[in-house]
Amino acid sequence: MIRVAIVGASGYTGVELLRLLENHPGVQVSCVTAGQNAGEEISTLFPSLIERISLRCEETDVALVADRADFVFTALPHQTAMAVVPGFLDAGKKVVDLSADYRLQNVAEYEAWYQKHSSPHLLAEAVYGLPEISRKQVATARLVANPGCYPTSVALALAPLLREGLVDLDSLIIDSKSGTSGAGRSAKVGSLFCEVNEGFKAYSVGNHRHTPEIEQTLSALAGRKVLVNFTPHLLPVNRGILSTCYANLGKAASTAELLELYRDHYRQEFFVRVLGEGNLPNVAYVRGSNFCDIGLVSDPRTGRVIVVSAIDNLVKGAAGQAVQNMNLMLGFDEKAGLTALPLFP
Amino acid sequence: MIRVAIVGASGYTGVELLRLLENHPGVQVSCVTAGQNAGEEISTLFPSLIERISLRCEETDVALVADRADFVFTALPHQTAMAVVPGFLDAGKKVVDLSADYRLQNVAEYEAWYQKHSSPHLLAEAVYGLPEISRKQVATARLVANPGCYPTSVALALAPLLREGLVDLDSLIIDSKSGTSGAGRSAKVGSLFCEVNEGFKAYSVGNHRHTPEIEQTLSALAGRKVLVNFTPHLLPVNRGILSTCYANLGKAASTAELLELYRDHYRQEFFVRVLGEGNLPNVAYVRGSNFCDIGLVSDPRTGRVIVVSAIDNLVKGAAGQAVQNMNLMLGFDEKAGLTALPLFP
Amino acid sequence: MIRVAIVGASGYTGVELLRLLENHPGVQVSCVTAGQNAGEEISTLFPSLIERISLRCEETDVALVADRADFVFTALPHQTAMAVVPGFLDAGKKVVDLSADYRLQNVAEYEAWYQKHSSPHLLAEAVYGLPEISRKQVATARLVANPGCYPTSVALALAPLLREGLVDLDSLIIDSKSGTSGAGRSAKVGSLFCEVNEGFKAYSVGNHRHTPEIEQTLSALAGRKVLVNFTPHLLPVNRGILSTCYANLGKAASTAELLELYRDHYRQEFFVRVLGEGNLPNVAYVRGSNFCDIGLVSDPRTGRVIVVSAIDNLVKGAAGQAVQNMNLMLGFDEKAGLTALPLFP
Amino acid sequence: MIRVAIVGASGYTGVELLRLLENHPGVQVSCVTAGQNAGEEISTLFPSLIERISLRCEETDVALVADRADFVFTALPHQTAMAVVPGFLDAGKKVVDLSADYRLQNVAEYEAWYQKHSSPHLLAEAVYGLPEISRKQVATARLVANPGCYPTSVALALAPLLREGLVDLDSLIIDSKSGTSGAGRSAKVGSLFCEVNEGFKAYSVGNHRHTPEIEQTLSALAGRKVLVNFTPHLLPVNRGILSTCYANLGKAASTAELLELYRDHYRQEFFVRVLGEGNLPNVAYVRGSNFCDIGLVSDPRTGRVIVVSAIDNLVKGAAGQAVQNMNLMLGFDEKAGLTALPLFP
Repeated sequence: MIRVAIVGASGYTGVELLRLLENHPGVQVSCVTAGQNAGEEISTLFPSLIERISLRCEETDVALVADRADFVFTALPHQTAMAVVPGFLDAGKKVVDLSADYRLQNVAEYEAWYQKHSSPHLLAEAVYGLPEISRKQVATARLVANPGCYPTSVALALAPLLREGLVDLDSLIIDSKSGTSGAGRSAKVGSLFCEVNEGFKAYSVGNHRHTPEIEQTLSALAGRKVLVNFTPHLLPVNRGILSTCYANLGKAASTAELLELYRDHYRQEFFVRVLGEGNLPNVAYVRGSNFCDIGLVSDPRTGRVIVVSAIDNLVKGAAGQAVQNMNLMLGFDEKAGLTALPLFP
Repeated sequence: MIRVAIVGASGYTGVELLRLLENHPGVQVSCVTAGQNAGEEISTLFPSLIERISLRCEETDVALVADRADFVFTALPHQTAMAVVPGFLDAGKKVVDLSADYRLQNVAEYEAWYQKHSSPHLLAEAVYGLPEISRKQVATARLVANPGCYPTSVALALAPLLREGLVDLDSLIIDSKSGTSGAGRSAKVGSLFCEVNEGFKAYSVGNHRHTPEIEQTLSALAGRKVLVNFTPHLLPVNRGILSTCYANLGKAASTAELLELYRDHYRQEFFVRVLGEGNLPNVAYVRGSNFCDIGLVSDPRTGRVIVVSAIDNLVKGAAGQAVQNMNLMLGFDEKAGLTALPLFP
Repeated sequence: MIRVAIVGASGYTGVELLRLLENHPGVQVSCVTAGQNAGEEISTLFPSLIERISLRCEETDVALVADRADFVFTALPHQTAMAVVPGFLDAGKKVVDLSADYRLQNVAEYEAWYQKHSSPHLLAEAVYGLPEISRKQVATARLVANPGCYPTSVALALAPLLREGLVDLDSLIIDSKSGTSGAGRSAKVGSLFCEVNEGFKAYSVGNHRHTPEIEQTLSALAGRKVLVNFTPHLLPVNRGILSTCYANLGKAASTAELLELYRDHYRQEFFVRVLGEGNLPNVAYVRGSNFCDIGLVSDPRTGRVIVVSAIDNLVKGAAGQAVQNMNLMLGFDEKAGLTALPLFP
Repeated sequence: MIRVAIVGASGYTGVELLRLLENHPGVQVSCVTAGQNAGEEISTLFPSLIERISLRCEETDVALVADRADFVFTALPHQTAMAVVPGFLDAGKKVVDLSADYRLQNVAEYEAWYQKHSSPHLLAEAVYGLPEISRKQVATARLVANPGCYPTSVALALAPLLREGLVDLDSLIIDSKSGTSGAGRSAKVGSLFCEVNEGFKAYSVGNHRHTPEIEQTLSALAGRKVLVNFTPHLLPVNRGILSTCYANLGKAASTAELLELYRDHYRQEFFVRVLGEGNLPNVAYVRGSNFCDIGLVSDPRTGRVIVVSAIDNLVKGAAGQAVQNMNLMLGFDEKAGLTALPLFP
């Protein structure tokens, strides 16, 4: 069994990694860190783990973690992650970083949307870990930047269209809706039950930090710089992202033709499910799973295609994709630990 | 007190009309009909009304209702409404019809999206009752077609831009999300709690029946035929519609400039609240009220404006707007019965 | 118009007082205080109020408030309330205090369950403001202690049985469930959406601070000291308390007989609705209203009666009852501002 | 691989069995029946299964099912189950029946609470399949009656107290709250999203059909006939049952002493987690898992103990327990297919 550490385990991504790895045949979580809760049992933070996982939270100390584990997941906020990731690499560990710190290849862009970067030399090395798009690079990477939740849902929704050059690249509009676990477990008034429940709003319109990440991926797929409108919304559900993507078709194509293209494109992909004509995804049908469900409609009245994708933001949008990347990096079956069916209802 | 009938009172719109009219200073509900529940106390159907409203459901009989009431709300499904509305008019009653039957002026379009129309001659007479856009015509109408919930949210969101000719009319994309009360109170598996709760989906993509209604209103505002992409989604909340509207600006305009335009436009409108820069609406902040909240962002990167509007689909999107129309038709203060603040949380 | 102050307006009780008082015919809110948000518009804290209420939050300064208002609601946490209430009384104002500070008549009991009391002399004077039980005393009071949400739901559920001496006083078990607004608007991990949504738990079992308050009221009704088991639970809804109360009947009585007793008991009470046999309350049917709905079942198999009551914890359980008390203290119609029907769905 | 049939697979229990068995190492679902949907892909009914499970619904025909499968789960409504179960036994199959038809040993009691029984001779043979209480009998059974969801949560909560004779058997009060999936997937107005969401109610007070089942189990544990008050409530969550159980202690015992008893009692039980003092269960922490979490408090003021248990009604309350029973009946590891951690949040 390979020993795995989860650095920054006190958030929802941390507990989700623990859930998924518990049933993984080849690894064992040997170390969890959570600076604020050092010394506490992880099951005190997450009573869902009681009696099944008995690990005590450690300080986030690079040497200690490097001693305890062969492979490291960093589930820290941006800026905090870059303070420890280089140390793990220096200690010879492979790392999947779930923060935003190594996702943007262009340091200027990173610094424009976030803050100063302390290890910009690693940006060129880090592999953006969306296996359905960059599987080979992931397999040989030392450092994988795990994609953001929104960008994952968008990249999988649009990849076939962009690769085939079927749409007007200046017409892309992405209207996304995320469950509240995406806001994390920190105590903020805006995340309180009574503020979110029975509510719905758009936020960060025009300036969400996932915008450059989405544009980087779409630009790579399209072969030229792409700008998009990306509008995130807050859904009163625990889990799930639904992205509704609009694009002007370069030339007319029916729903059936486009679905055929998508099926061809994703035929080998276990985790991408292309729905039949007339069916559209629902976040309820991917809950707890690593699937990305995709449906689409071509509208001949306006010449646009509408592609809708659904993922569980904590699984394919975070912890599940991180495990998928780990599987590739360590030579396991890519699906190991990730074959559970969605929890419905 | 003017005697008012609610024809088809067994749905969510019916109980909402009863709630709003109970505190109206000038009218009294004298008759409710509900064919399936004829003979039952309305408070048996809706225990929220117990001890406060004691009306027994009647058959939907035109003569009976005409005898009991001076003014009629028809809250029936489309096709059922057109079977009784002409009768009420013939009996000399004014009518606000909450169905779709008299919303489209073009009979061919109505019949293309719905079914055969049995009183097409009334389409020319019926006034589309969105007071912020057609107040004068409503005031003198005999028959008002109460707008659909989605179309209301969209028309108020886009009217200033279209009237001023500020956007590319071929670029309009409307991504709307509605609470589940919009699906009505009929027993369908798709509306069950466990199917909707913790879920989110798009539906009727490219073919929702509110599309021609939206296009009719936007075309009138713009002065030429407009086609849009309209994508509705189902939100796991009881009440509320949020519409996120995208348009390419004809020439650059800042968020502040556009907000100033909106404030000018809606300065006299009690029920439209234009939010300050940096603020965006949330359905939670209009719950139970007749307000439409509007916020917007101009994105200089893409040259688009994103306008977001929020209403309570059962109030400004149905029963509240119907009362607002009645107030105009009967010469009451337009706000009568509609001044309650939103219920938050 | 009588000028009213809300001291401590930044919580859910504060915004609910503003909502209810906005439609009150005889008073106007002239002053709101919120120490942490002094200087901010109250509509910044609660966007539901935008354009309808424009008051700026003040510091909680007794002299300033006394100058601005004729009547004071204190909606502060316990211990904070007692720091200002005596000052308002000294300034000649009548006060409804929504905290727990003046609810318990026995100072030792208060200090055992809370902390030291700084104005114990007022405990004897303060009237426990449950109008259905102590209407006359409220009407002449200078200081009314507004009951807790749970105790209100329990006292109304059990008063007829206790007054008539129909149950074994050692057998009382109260299983209550409250919506999350009862936990307030402070940022705590336990109140986050993802922690509460899709969850349900009991808390403070055996030691909730509403226990002595419940026992004080029930003891007064019964004429001797009563101990109860009171178990609160956290419901994933915004509003509502449902209390399920169990008692052993002294002698057999049918459901019909007991309901008749309840109807007699509450015949004059506008805000208490006794349901018919076979019907039981639902928090959904009192949402946003000042009603308390009560249903009951007598179980001949076990000789117990089960009484179920439902209120909106923010209305009859807090702000609504406070307004009801104010109405009595100022000589208004007791129902003024409180006649809106429940918001369903 | 042993071939397994799910008879009556179109409900929430059916899809949950499919989810759990998909990861079972020793069995394969070879046949699903759903009379109303015969001929349809099961993934059409439950899109969560798309691309992972491709089985077409069959008619519920005993001979056909017996031919296709070695082991049968019947997930039919009561009365419908008894029409097919004898046939499967006659065909030599072992059966876990998830209906109520074989849970009550006394035919008169069954017929008093349900309707006429067509195979009363099987009541004596059927084993009530709560492995923590009747493991040995389950292991050798041909027909296991899978316990009801409420009764499971109650039996595990009270078994240690009853076996040890620590409580007054005439004092048992059980206040239970269930998620809405317990109401099934049939289209009823009372199960609609807008009726359940933001609501909470008690139902079937004094006459719920799980009462005799609870009493049968508790009586067997106590060694004499026990009557209880059992009050179910409807929770606005998809999954989960929380039962709050009250009992008068025969003699004083502290929380710590009682917890020690529970820990001793359940030390060997993988699926029962006894929480530490000060901790109480939450349905959120068992979601999707086969765990039953138990916490308790002894209240010295009243001499009562309050025991709280939480299960997922679809797992330990239905499909999970059915798989656990199957594992025992077929000689698999009792935990096979059931080791996934809860899904939180």
